[in-house]
Amino acid sequence: MEIIEVSPRDGLQNEAVLVSTEDKITLIERSIAAGLRRIEATSFVHPKRVPQMADAEAVMAGVPRRADVSYIGLVLNRRGFDRAIAAGVDEVNCVVVASETFSQRNQGMSVADSVRTVRDLADDARAAGVALSVTIATAFGCPFEGEVPEATVVDLARQVGEFGVDEIALADTIGVGVPTQVARLVAGVGAVAPGVRLRCHFHNTRNTGYANAVAALDAGVTVLDASTGGIGGCPFAPAATGNIATEDLVYLLDRSGVESGVDLRQLIETADWLSGVLGSTVPGQLARAGVFPG
Amino acid sequence: MEIIEVSPRDGLQNEAVLVSTEDKITLIERSIAAGLRRIEATSFVHPKRVPQMADAEAVMAGVPRRADVSYIGLVLNRRGFDRAIAAGVDEVNCVVVASETFSQRNQGMSVADSVRTVRDLADDARAAGVALSVTIATAFGCPFEGEVPEATVVDLARQVGEFGVDEIALADTIGVGVPTQVARLVAGVGAVAPGVRLRCHFHNTRNTGYANAVAALDAGVTVLDASTGGIGGCPFAPAATGNIATEDLVYLLDRSGVESGVDLRQLIETADWLSGVLGSTVPGQLARAGVFPG
Repeated sequence: MEIIEVSPRDGLQNEAVLVSTEDKITLIERSIAAGLRRIEATSFVHPKRVPQMADAEAVMAGVPRRADVSYIGLVLNRRGFDRAIAAGVDEVNCVVVASETFSQRNQGMSVADSVRTVRDLADDARAAGVALSVTIATAFGCPFEGEVPEATVVDLARQVGEFGVDEIALADTIGVGVPTQVARLVAGVGAVAPGVRLRCHFHNTRNTGYANAVAALDAGVTVLDASTGGIGGCPFAPAATGNIATEDLVYLLDRSGVESGVDLRQLIETADWLSGVLGSTVPGQLARAGVFPG
Repeated sequence: MEIIEVSPRDGLQNEAVLVSTEDKITLIERSIAAGLRRIEATSFVHPKRVPQMADAEAVMAGVPRRADVSYIGLVLNRRGFDRAIAAGVDEVNCVVVASETFSQRNQGMSVADSVRTVRDLADDARAAGVALSVTIATAFGCPFEGEVPEATVVDLARQVGEFGVDEIALADTIGVGVPTQVARLVAGVGAVAPGVRLRCHFHNTRNTGYANAVAALDAGVTVLDASTGGIGGCPFAPAATGNIATEDLVYLLDRSGVESGVDLRQLIETADWLSGVLGSTVPGQLARAGVFPG
């Protein structure tokens, strides 16, 4: 199981405390030291919309460059893409939303326009030699529209899959999904985008995040997003709370005999350090409960 | 799926705030109103050991009597059993522990002595016309001894199964279990105690509780313990935290199409009320996150 560490971007973007560029770089360095190899480092969006990510270029300028580490930059449009490439990201992550209302609120465009954006950027990414992944947001439910038809999600996956993207991520943006839904969506998307690697992104807002992670694993998904400390949320989704915590996920994987290559004790130290940086206890539970067996 | 509401006993026993008998009865009445039909109402243990349960008789004297509601009293020995019968419980729940150190700390006797106690009480329960269930504590790990061999748990289940008990509960007392362990233990116990109904009891201490509940369901278990608000813990286990929350479990079951007969919105109201009684926010997440779709 490959874990993408999203704390520097999805984790921090909703935090009230403005975290320094230096601390963001330390977070990334600590993640690499713990064994994480794909890191969602930042997003290239408008600083007025997401002030926490205003230092995207500075973060990318300060992170260690290693052949075995891939930095992902989130972009929503051409301008963000150009900034990400200039900043030297290894991968670009675009977003299409499975519900119109959230698409307008999150990225200020219709779903159809965001699909066209992905189509254009897929060509540009190939030309620039960077990998492109696409997150399908609100794939398990929308905070404004409620239920999202699974056929809508599957159809979006089919469309972006045809653009030759490297990876599709199914995101439970507001943490409403359940394992049976994961199994159905993964099977449905796998059927229409057979050549594309599948990844899942879960929030634990209603305590289903880890059960969903297990369901994804059981359904054959090999890439999961997680955020050290379980921090996170979306500024444009009401009551959204944290991603699944990397340390809690690694505990579950370790004791299930699933290799992730990540060191649990170092993650716990980082979660503790992060609590200090943010001035509040992080939601991840391993730091408080302790490793078992000790 | 049948849910046993354990908040009045396992939920409250570790709370620092001494809850009034009246509030305990209200909690039970609210649980029944929400559709719960088996309720772990109290324990008949020494009041010096567990002060929160000192009013066991008064609680049982005050709860509504209905033909469709079954009250469970936890007992650790003959004296507790006699008190429970005199108080009019419908079911008695005994405990055997799968590790010697925890057995001594939790109930002041060896594992072998606790097995003998169950053997004697099984005869007495039949004579008294009450159902008897047996919880195997620390089945997924011990806070003092670490790993608990699965063969030990299975052998305990075989022994108590032969006494003709009605139900065996596999308890992850300190919240260390993972879904693969659930699948193995449920299969192992099912093989040696084929006539006995299986039940699981999970704590969410390391964020694996709900994934374990799904694993139990997938393995054919039809009875789960849960505690409204996700309150709970064991006074004799260091760093033990809450049971899985009834409302979060029912959310997961509802959206998975699994019938429990329990009303989610009433559970959430009870979780809110319980936060008020305890003077602190309960760990269950549905009360904060809200039902989806709203």
